[in-house]
Amino acid sequence: MFANTPDPPYYAVIFASQRTANDEGYGQMADRMVEIAAAQPGYLGIESVRDAEGYGITVSYWSSAEAIVNWKANTEHLAAQELGRSLWYERYELRVAKVERAYGA
Amino acid sequence: MFANTPDPPYYAVIFASQRTANDEGYGQMADRMVEIAAAQPGYLGIESVRDAEGYGITVSYWSSAEAIVNWKANTEHLAAQELGRSLWYERYELRVAKVERAYGA
Repeated sequence: MFANTPDPPYYAVIFASQRTANDEGYGQMADRMVEIAAAQPGYLGIESVRDAEGYGITVSYWSSAEAIVNWKANTEHLAAQELGRSLWYERYELRVAKVERAYGA
Repeated sequence: MFANTPDPPYYAVIFASQRTANDEGYGQMADRMVEIAAAQPGYLGIESVRDAEGYGITVSYWSSAEAIVNWKANTEHLAAQELGRSLWYERYELRVAKVERAYGA
């Protein structure tokens, strides 16, 4: 649930999204994307939550900006992005950010 | 629900948290923190979601790292942070990140 990230600096992809009512294939694809993201070079972890109204925030963590570019260009991920735009997401906002400091308790 | 942020660069505070079962005063304080955050210099917006199990991610956006330091030091916010640590959060992880690029649909 909490990503076990190293000391900064590293990168975060902040993905906020509103799901459509269309669930066809979504759960399976979401699981698959987490699986192949975790196998990508530079992957550090993920934190993700969605509420009952279909609004969600997923933050994935990466060792470098280049690792994020490579993940975005992954062939299977490109197909999933296309389906996301056309079927599963009513709206989304994606931000790439460099984590400069971090703490927790 | 989605923050209406300007073009990058700007800053994000990524706050992932697991709530305790203690709801005493939490909702009122959370609303108040959003209210006073929005009145702080440099505040750009907020995106927040929590699921039925009490796991949540809140991302607030700020114009600069300095604006975040000032928000953290806000007197009312400091009191809320202390209550959060002692009463409301079982665990949390906070990351400060500089947004370098953004897009949406």
